[in-house]
Amino acid sequence: MNTTAAYAAITAKTPLVPYSIERRDPGPHEVLIDILYCGVCHSDIHQVRDEWGGSIFPMVPGHEIVGTVVKAGRHVSKWKIGDTVGVGCFVDSCHECEACKEGEEQFCEAGMSATYNSYEQDGKTLTYGGYSTCITVSEDYVLRIPAGLPLERVAPLLCAGITTYSPLRHFGVKAGDYVAIVGLGGLGHMGVKIAKAMGAFVTVLSHSPGKRDDALALGADDFIATGEKGVFEVNAKRFDFILDTISAKHDYNDYLNLLRRDGTMVLVGIPEPMPLAAGSLVMQRRKLAGSLIGGIRETQEMLDFCAEHNVVSDVEVIPIQKVNEAYERVLKSDVHYRFVIDIASLKKS
Amino acid sequence: MNTTAAYAAITAKTPLVPYSIERRDPGPHEVLIDILYCGVCHSDIHQVRDEWGGSIFPMVPGHEIVGTVVKAGRHVSKWKIGDTVGVGCFVDSCHECEACKEGEEQFCEAGMSATYNSYEQDGKTLTYGGYSTCITVSEDYVLRIPAGLPLERVAPLLCAGITTYSPLRHFGVKAGDYVAIVGLGGLGHMGVKIAKAMGAFVTVLSHSPGKRDDALALGADDFIATGEKGVFEVNAKRFDFILDTISAKHDYNDYLNLLRRDGTMVLVGIPEPMPLAAGSLVMQRRKLAGSLIGGIRETQEMLDFCAEHNVVSDVEVIPIQKVNEAYERVLKSDVHYRFVIDIASLKKS
Repeated sequence: MNTTAAYAAITAKTPLVPYSIERRDPGPHEVLIDILYCGVCHSDIHQVRDEWGGSIFPMVPGHEIVGTVVKAGRHVSKWKIGDTVGVGCFVDSCHECEACKEGEEQFCEAGMSATYNSYEQDGKTLTYGGYSTCITVSEDYVLRIPAGLPLERVAPLLCAGITTYSPLRHFGVKAGDYVAIVGLGGLGHMGVKIAKAMGAFVTVLSHSPGKRDDALALGADDFIATGEKGVFEVNAKRFDFILDTISAKHDYNDYLNLLRRDGTMVLVGIPEPMPLAAGSLVMQRRKLAGSLIGGIRETQEMLDFCAEHNVVSDVEVIPIQKVNEAYERVLKSDVHYRFVIDIASLKKS
Repeated sequence: MNTTAAYAAITAKTPLVPYSIERRDPGPHEVLIDILYCGVCHSDIHQVRDEWGGSIFPMVPGHEIVGTVVKAGRHVSKWKIGDTVGVGCFVDSCHECEACKEGEEQFCEAGMSATYNSYEQDGKTLTYGGYSTCITVSEDYVLRIPAGLPLERVAPLLCAGITTYSPLRHFGVKAGDYVAIVGLGGLGHMGVKIAKAMGAFVTVLSHSPGKRDDALALGADDFIATGEKGVFEVNAKRFDFILDTISAKHDYNDYLNLLRRDGTMVLVGIPEPMPLAAGSLVMQRRKLAGSLIGGIRETQEMLDFCAEHNVVSDVEVIPIQKVNEAYERVLKSDVHYRFVIDIASLKKS
């Protein structure tokens, strides 16, 4: 076992504190990864504060992990010492169900093992995430980080990147499509970059008029301040595809009416239940769908796509000692656009 | 002009009464159709009683029309005197917009001319429907009724048939798919027959346990009484496709959770807005869509499909003098499964 420095939430009501966990030596098909960077996802905060229920404490959050392979089990064939790799939102799944066989492990019917706040497939070993100096993971759940990318800006691709890439790809967005990205936070800013790299005409919709310049700087072609009077009417039936990244309460019908005939809106956030008017779908044969991160194969495809198109996250790198402060700033949307923890700060202490 | 016997609602609060309307002589591209049968659609009642707002009186309802061409304009090329034809939910549209050009006239951007309770494309001539002895329609908005089918059982295909065929076809239902039909009324019973003819394994979901025998007799392979305890849990993730024909308030989330990963549920009714939980879509990448009748080309395709597979509606034929009574019975779901007016009853009076 390897005693490992980490930051953990001991309860839902207390700040993260320095903590020590044990990481197992890699089994025959596992690798031990020395963690370099870990992104701060809004879902870390939800889970640390038990806002979704069922949180397991102590909790070491973090599922946007980039690091280096430092040890490999004797049957590991995919990785060698020194490889730069990533770990995303899950570290294992059943390998046997239809979803796993199709490479859609995020929908594992037995339940995937989330990277933290979850259990290994043995059903009893608690998983701890990337706010720590190392992690032991099955070789099949590790991603290859293409060379040449700034690693601190790659980390958020492991969740924010795949969460936005997957629906854009799965629902067939193509060059020339009119795509709206609703919300310009950690997810939204990746949505803009990826949709743009796919050749779409990208419009950002945000409640905050102040985000216009940022949206355009990120590559968006247009911006709509949703608080302005009449914008939903003026822009009706304008978009082929809408990626809705908002987690706060909002009216789906307003946004659905911005879709052209046969258009699709995809939810990647989980706001509280909101009223849906059937007419918003029936009248233009629209579709409302949901999407959940992505499978291992698709996550690798996303990383390769991002390398090819030079897409990385806009980040603010922090030492882990500032993580509680970062959480407060995330809640105030005061981040452009992702905090990433430099795990070196945890190794020095 | 042709003085034509009809039944009309004079106000939203009074029963239908005998009425007289004028039908124009067919223009160069129009035909005059002698009406034989007209189905009674639930939407007739909604509109007669102004339950959707904006009803125009006097109103002659009816958009499930079968009849015979008795007069043709001098440039009519598609029809000849004596042809058996149908008219569905609309009698014209702009011909110019993208939707019209793609044969999706139901989504005409200028607004289609509904068969009744609407205006011709001139924006001022009120349309009157099939509770009448004849109708004048542009030749492009007339359907060919394949030979050999009992005409009174064909009439409901013009609305109930296309409303269910279109989503089943458009969203790619194929042989072997597990299809659920929610609600066993006029729409639902056509959904069962058409999905079955497409080779699907069809399950009917109904609040009324008494409909089990009927569902199986109509061709369904299975039946679920939705009022029974635990049925939503037991049947979770079972279906590839759900056709939801219910117009009354119901919880979409209950039904969405019956869909497998990547499954689609399509609404064809318009209940009042209901709460939608994003998780119902996100967790299995499900889709919720809407569908609205169908275009002329697809309606013809549906009629040909029904002829090929011997699919017709189960009907109760009534004289027009019983239409008010029939409305009351529709509201009590006391019909198996569509009332069809024998328009001969209007010609004798």
